[in-house]
Amino acid sequence: MKAWKEYQEQNKDRFLNELLDLLRIPSVSARSEHKDDMTRCAEAVKQRLLEAGADTVTIYPTDGHPVVYGEKIIDPSKPTILVYGHYDVQPADPLELWNSGPFDPVIKDGKIYARGSCDDKGQFYMHVKALETMTRTNTLQANVKFCIEGEEEVGSPNLATFVKANKELLKADVILISDTSMLSMETPSIDIGVRGLSYIEVEVTGPNRDLHSGVYGGAVANPVTMLAKMIASCHDENNHITIPGFYDDVVESTPEERAKMAQAPFDEEAYKKDLGINSLWGEKGYTTNERTGIRPTLEVNGIWGGYTGEGAKTVLPSKAFAKISCRLVPNQSSVKMTEKILSYFKSIAPAGVTVKAEEHHGGEPYMTPIDSNAYKAAAKAIHATFGKDPIPVRGGGSIPICALFEKELGIKIVFMGFGLDSDNLHSPNEKYDLFNFYKGIETIPYFHQFFAEMKNS
Amino acid sequence: MKAWKEYQEQNKDRFLNELLDLLRIPSVSARSEHKDDMTRCAEAVKQRLLEAGADTVTIYPTDGHPVVYGEKIIDPSKPTILVYGHYDVQPADPLELWNSGPFDPVIKDGKIYARGSCDDKGQFYMHVKALETMTRTNTLQANVKFCIEGEEEVGSPNLATFVKANKELLKADVILISDTSMLSMETPSIDIGVRGLSYIEVEVTGPNRDLHSGVYGGAVANPVTMLAKMIASCHDENNHITIPGFYDDVVESTPEERAKMAQAPFDEEAYKKDLGINSLWGEKGYTTNERTGIRPTLEVNGIWGGYTGEGAKTVLPSKAFAKISCRLVPNQSSVKMTEKILSYFKSIAPAGVTVKAEEHHGGEPYMTPIDSNAYKAAAKAIHATFGKDPIPVRGGGSIPICALFEKELGIKIVFMGFGLDSDNLHSPNEKYDLFNFYKGIETIPYFHQFFAEMKNS
Repeated sequence: MKAWKEYQEQNKDRFLNELLDLLRIPSVSARSEHKDDMTRCAEAVKQRLLEAGADTVTIYPTDGHPVVYGEKIIDPSKPTILVYGHYDVQPADPLELWNSGPFDPVIKDGKIYARGSCDDKGQFYMHVKALETMTRTNTLQANVKFCIEGEEEVGSPNLATFVKANKELLKADVILISDTSMLSMETPSIDIGVRGLSYIEVEVTGPNRDLHSGVYGGAVANPVTMLAKMIASCHDENNHITIPGFYDDVVESTPEERAKMAQAPFDEEAYKKDLGINSLWGEKGYTTNERTGIRPTLEVNGIWGGYTGEGAKTVLPSKAFAKISCRLVPNQSSVKMTEKILSYFKSIAPAGVTVKAEEHHGGEPYMTPIDSNAYKAAAKAIHATFGKDPIPVRGGGSIPICALFEKELGIKIVFMGFGLDSDNLHSPNEKYDLFNFYKGIETIPYFHQFFAEMKNS
Repeated sequence: MKAWKEYQEQNKDRFLNELLDLLRIPSVSARSEHKDDMTRCAEAVKQRLLEAGADTVTIYPTDGHPVVYGEKIIDPSKPTILVYGHYDVQPADPLELWNSGPFDPVIKDGKIYARGSCDDKGQFYMHVKALETMTRTNTLQANVKFCIEGEEEVGSPNLATFVKANKELLKADVILISDTSMLSMETPSIDIGVRGLSYIEVEVTGPNRDLHSGVYGGAVANPVTMLAKMIASCHDENNHITIPGFYDDVVESTPEERAKMAQAPFDEEAYKKDLGINSLWGEKGYTTNERTGIRPTLEVNGIWGGYTGEGAKTVLPSKAFAKISCRLVPNQSSVKMTEKILSYFKSIAPAGVTVKAEEHHGGEPYMTPIDSNAYKAAAKAIHATFGKDPIPVRGGGSIPICALFEKELGIKIVFMGFGLDSDNLHSPNEKYDLFNFYKGIETIPYFHQFFAEMKNS
């Protein structure tokens, strides 16, 4: 048994309890009322990095929430691994659908239930505990840097400024990110790409005040109805997106690529059963894995307008709102796409209402090469602990900062995620399997070892 | 000067202060947390009726909120006027759009701002003060009964039971209701009809939990998008309603009737300016007054689903909801129409989601004849105080109980409303002009006098 495996076995309960403490901090970046919690969480991350063996840890303020940077430099001539993660989490609502408090973690059936358990506190904390393991067992073979930010869930609006101002500090040979998922623990996989994002909000205004629907209904354009028509217009009868130029820059996958993707195991009946739906949906001509992997999408993330309380109110509302986001695939530019989407919503504004459409945030898509040392080291590390080669897959989610990292730092990213798609990310009852948590802590040191060996060979 | 006019002048400040006290009670019938306020409001109404000279006042419990019944019988052989009104009010939200507290009435520019100031506390209270005026000045010429209920804004679900069980108690020669509006104080009018109502709620369920829009978006039907498509389908390109059979029972107005309606003053530019809109909307082939008077309509009163908080959340929601109501015109049955509307929403449920559609409440349309003594008495009373004959108009709103009153009690209703369409009924900053309030108190005794004279003649 590796020395680190023994160390981890002996300390596993403490590792878990430390994570639970971190999960108790409601670090919701989107909500201004959690500003103090964000600061508290950044302080906690700093403390844990120092305890794990980092030489120095600094909290860098930004115009938004702070970035925690830490490092352990064993030898400047050795390879350096930059770990990126985020300590912020998605909002927890709808609260009523949680079986236990989102910030009151519970262990049930071998899983940690809490907001952020998988995305991303549970995952970045594996790297903190891997660092501790390697320093205490004297097995560290590469330098390690940590960049743990607090704004990933709101599109990393301030991280670019931090990265541009600190290129030397962040200099490394690879960026390692655990913020994605595997197909399953039986079918380990590595994400080789993340989609980009364009996130907008649409506000439709009709009359200058809420009106009595009996007195004015039928004579004044209802902003909810108008917004519904606008949203309905975004997909045609084949569920292709109708926004002009939406697919212009998409590089179509070749039949060979699609054939290879089709080999990834997919059980449609189990997928539908897990979600409680009786039929799938999506763009005609593509499989489910293609729809979530290689195709851009448009989803309404939220809608509201008029009376939404108990009972009935006969009102013709003044305003209606929607939050809408698109996932983008490689070669699509988030900046260009956001412009197209905003223009579309403004252009289809029906008479009788005014439409305001504004950007929330965006992020560029990213693809990682599978012939690099970093990818090979990750694949070898996973083989070492899972006993199987991982399958390369295209992930559906977005990590807005990836493209910028590569552009500014000139280094590639490798995604080594240990979550599952069924972990209820961004949903009530987010969870993370203890098995996955410990498996990650066990696997990460192998990555360090193999990556250092490959770089030095 | 009439004796009662002098009495009213001397007591006008007290009349107003009493109304303000009533407006301070947040008697929102739709919200269960206001149950105690409803009881408190019923008690206040009872007390005020007794103070105004009623012989007996009783609070009748129902399965919902109580009915306040009071009477002043001067001579059983004289005609009896039954006043109907309601002490419940619409919910006050969106609260942030009120310039002052909805239950903290303020007088500004000669208007009372408060929820219920016009609909209907301010209006039914005119009758209480008219009763006081007539008893104190010994000018009462008819018996008066009051039926003030607490569930009008939620469709009067329990009043039918009360009416059926108390036909003898409620026996009268006419029902007088002040819960409608006039064209203006310069152009007095009398509503000769109210529209019916079918109010439903639609719940669309997609996946069994909120999903990460990156992981599942594009592959799973989004309930918000599906609901938007369903709502968008309700009106065609001419804004005709597409629900099968929607117009089947509508009795089309004759060209003569429409020509007569067209004579009511309507300033399109002033109408648009008041509402802050740049163009009107509605069913092709009909004028604004026709759209709100003689045509059935369908309006979305509220919509919600997914993340509606600050910032952004990349979620594919599990559920989306809408509150939808239709105004109905004479000869349309609310029961039949609700069935058609519910069936329609169930029938267009897209694959991948399930649709639940249920009734909130309904009410039948009602028309009052203009050749009755009651209508003539009302017109004469208005002429006495306004110096002009009122114009008969078709109102757009609904008073769900009207059809039932006529059916069960066998008597006609006359609407003598003193509100204005611009009084922000059901909206933030509901108001009622002091001028209208006092004008109503002055006019009502004339109705009593003329109606008694006509009946006796």
